[in-house]
Amino acid sequence: MRLAVIPGDGIGTEVVAEGLKVLGEVAHDVETTSYDLGAARWQRTGELLPDSVLEELRQHDAILLGAVGDPSVPPGILERGLLLRLRFELDHHVNLRPAKLYDGVRSPLAEPGEIDMLCIREGTEGPYTGNGGVLRRDTPHEVATEVSVNTAFGVERVVRYAFERALARPRRHLTLVHKTNVLSHAGSLWSRTVEEVAAEFTEVTVAYQHVDAASMFFITDPSRYDVIVTDNLFGDIITDVAAAVTGGIGLAASGNLDVSGTNPSMFEPVHGSAPDIAGQGKADPTATVLSVGLLLEHLGLGDQARKVNAAVAFDLSTRDPLAPMRTSEVGDRLAALASG
Amino acid sequence: MRLAVIPGDGIGTEVVAEGLKVLGEVAHDVETTSYDLGAARWQRTGELLPDSVLEELRQHDAILLGAVGDPSVPPGILERGLLLRLRFELDHHVNLRPAKLYDGVRSPLAEPGEIDMLCIREGTEGPYTGNGGVLRRDTPHEVATEVSVNTAFGVERVVRYAFERALARPRRHLTLVHKTNVLSHAGSLWSRTVEEVAAEFTEVTVAYQHVDAASMFFITDPSRYDVIVTDNLFGDIITDVAAAVTGGIGLAASGNLDVSGTNPSMFEPVHGSAPDIAGQGKADPTATVLSVGLLLEHLGLGDQARKVNAAVAFDLSTRDPLAPMRTSEVGDRLAALASG
Ligand SMILES: CC(C)[C@H](C(=O)O)[C@@H](O)C(=O)O
Ligand SMILES: CC(C)[C@H](C(=O)O)[C@@H](O)C(=O)O
Repeated sequence: MRLAVIPGDGIGTEVVAEGLKVLGEVAHDVETTSYDLGAARWQRTGELLPDSVLEELRQHDAILLGAVGDPSVPPGILERGLLLRLRFELDHHVNLRPAKLYDGVRSPLAEPGEIDMLCIREGTEGPYTGNGGVLRRDTPHEVATEVSVNTAFGVERVVRYAFERALARPRRHLTLVHKTNVLSHAGSLWSRTVEEVAAEFTEVTVAYQHVDAASMFFITDPSRYDVIVTDNLFGDIITDVAAAVTGGIGLAASGNLDVSGTNPSMFEPVHGSAPDIAGQGKADPTATVLSVGLLLEHLGLGDQARKVNAAVAFDLSTRDPLAPMRTSEVGDRLAALASG
Repeated sequence: MRLAVIPGDGIGTEVVAEGLKVLGEVAHDVETTSYDLGAARWQRTGELLPDSVLEELRQHDAILLGAVGDPSVPPGILERGLLLRLRFELDHHVNLRPAKLYDGVRSPLAEPGEIDMLCIREGTEGPYTGNGGVLRRDTPHEVATEVSVNTAFGVERVVRYAFERALARPRRHLTLVHKTNVLSHAGSLWSRTVEEVAAEFTEVTVAYQHVDAASMFFITDPSRYDVIVTDNLFGDIITDVAAAVTGGIGLAASGNLDVSGTNPSMFEPVHGSAPDIAGQGKADPTATVLSVGLLLEHLGLGDQARKVNAAVAFDLSTRDPLAPMRTSEVGDRLAALASG
C-alpha cells in the first residue's frame, strides 16, 4: 500500500502519528510518503497545493490527512486552496461520515447502540462549487450570489453508492435529506434520482426528510436513521449535528472517496487543527484512528479494518472519562489492541 | 388592533383558538378577521393566496398564523404558494426565533436558565428566492441550480436589527453564523456588513461561527449564545436545532417582521399542521401563545407581552410532564394566568 500522509497543522501532526502507529500494527506493507501542506507551508512559501504535489498524490493508493489551519491564515484560504481543491481535483464525490454511539461514550441523548448512522454527503457539487459572484462590491447596491450546481451525473452516483451501502447493512434503510419544499429545482433532481435508483434496490426502504426536520430528529430521535444521503452543504451541517450527539468531534471520522477508483481517496478526522491545544499532547487521536479504519475498509482490507474498529470500540468502553487524555497513550493502547 | 388570523390546517386551527383565548385576556380592543387559507382551501378551490386576500391582509396591524399543510397536497405547493409568498410579499425580512430553556422544561443538554438565545434569520433573500432552474430535465445531462441572492440592502437591514436587539439585552453579544470559508461571495458581504454595522454598536461584542460549528455548539454549549444573526437557509436549520435543545418544536415561537412597519408582521408557531394528531385536542398550544407574546411586543404592547410570557413561564414550571396534554386546558390555564 502506498499511502500519502498530510499531517498538516496543529494537532493534525499529533493525531496522524497515532493513526500511523495503529495502521502499522495491522497492515505490514505500508509505504508512506509525507507531504508538507497546510498553514505552515503557506506562511513560508505562499504555496497551497502545487501542481507537482497534486500529481504525486495521485500516484498513491490513499491519502491520510490530519488537519490544516491556523489563526494566522485568513479564513477560506486553506479551505478553498487546499482541502476543497483536493476534494474537487481528486473527484471525491462521496463524503462518508459514520456516526455511531459507542459503548462507554456518554451521550445525554441516547443509549449506546441506539445511534448507528452512516451519513453520505455529496462532495463535489452543490453550493461548494464556488460558482456565484459579487456585483457592485462595497456599494449600497452590492449583490452577492452563490450558485448550487447539481447534475444528474453527480447526484446519481452518490445516491447509487448510498443505496449500495444501505443494502449491505442490516436495517436497509435510506433517508434522503434535502429541502425540496423550498429548493425546488435541485430538490426535484435529488428526489427523482432517489426514486429512480430505488427501483433497482427494492430491498431498501426509503424515507425523505427536510434538512431542518432531520437536524432536529438527529437530536430527539437519532435511532430512526440508518443510511442518510444528502447534498454537500446539508451534509456539512448535519454531520456535525450527528457528531455532537455521538460523543463529539473527537470521535468523528470521514472518508472522501472517489468511488470509481480513478483517484486516491482521502481519509481525515472531521475536527480541525485546534491551535488552542496543539503541541500539548492532549488531542484525542480516536477520530483519526477510525479514519484509518475507513481507509482500510475502502482498500478492501476488511479484516484489518475490523481490528482497528474493534480496538476503538473496546478502548472507548473502558476509558476512564475523568482521566486526562494523552494523545500518544491512546495511540499506544489502540495499537496494542489492534495488533492483539 | 386589527388582527388577521389564518388558522390553517390540522392542529393549526386548534392552537390558534388558544392563542386568541390568551390574547383576549390581555388585550381588549382586538378586532379579528379570520382567513381561510391552506390545504383545505387549495383542495376545494385551487387557490393558494388570491390577490384580493393579500390586499385585505395588508390592511391589518398583524397576522396570526397557525399552520398549513396536509399530506394530500404535494410538497412545496403551500410552502411556496402561501407561506413563503406571504413572507416575500409582506417583506418579512426579519424572522425572529427566540430559543429559551424555561424552568420546568426537561432538557438533557442544559439547566434551565442556561439557554436564552434570540435567533434572527433573514427572511426574504438567500437560497429562498426561488432563483435557479433546470436544464435538460429528465436526461442524464440534467443540471439543476439554486441561486442564493444576497444584497447589501437586505443583509444590512437584518444585521442592523440584530445589533439593536443585542444592545437591548443584558449580555449584548451577537454571533454571525454563516459559512464564509466556502460561500465566499455571500460570506464576504455578510462579514463586511457585520463589521461595518458593529462600528455603530461598540457596546455589542461580536463573534463569528461557521454554520456547521454553530449547529454543534448549539447542542454541546448552547449557553454561549445571546443574539444570532444568519441567512435564510442557515436560519431555517439552526433554529430547529435550537428548538430541539430547548424543549422541542411544541415551544418554538416565531415572528416574521417587516421592521419598517409598511406591512403587517406575521406570527406563527414553528411547528407544522401535524395531521397525525389533528382533531384530537392534544396539540401543545404553547408555541402559538408565545407567538402571541411576540406579536404584542412587536405592536409595542410590552406589558401585555410580559403577562403572556410570564403565564407561559409559570405554567411550564408547574406542568406535570406525565399528564396528557389537552390543548384547550393548556389554553385555559395560560389565559387565566395571563389575566391574573
Ligand atoms: C473546512 C471546511 C471547508 C469543511 C467543509 O465545509 O466541508 C469542513 O467543515 C468539513 O466538514 O470537512
Ligand atoms: C415550511 C417551510 C417553507 C419553512 C421554511 O423553510 O422557512 C419552515 O421550515 C420554517 O422554518 O418556517
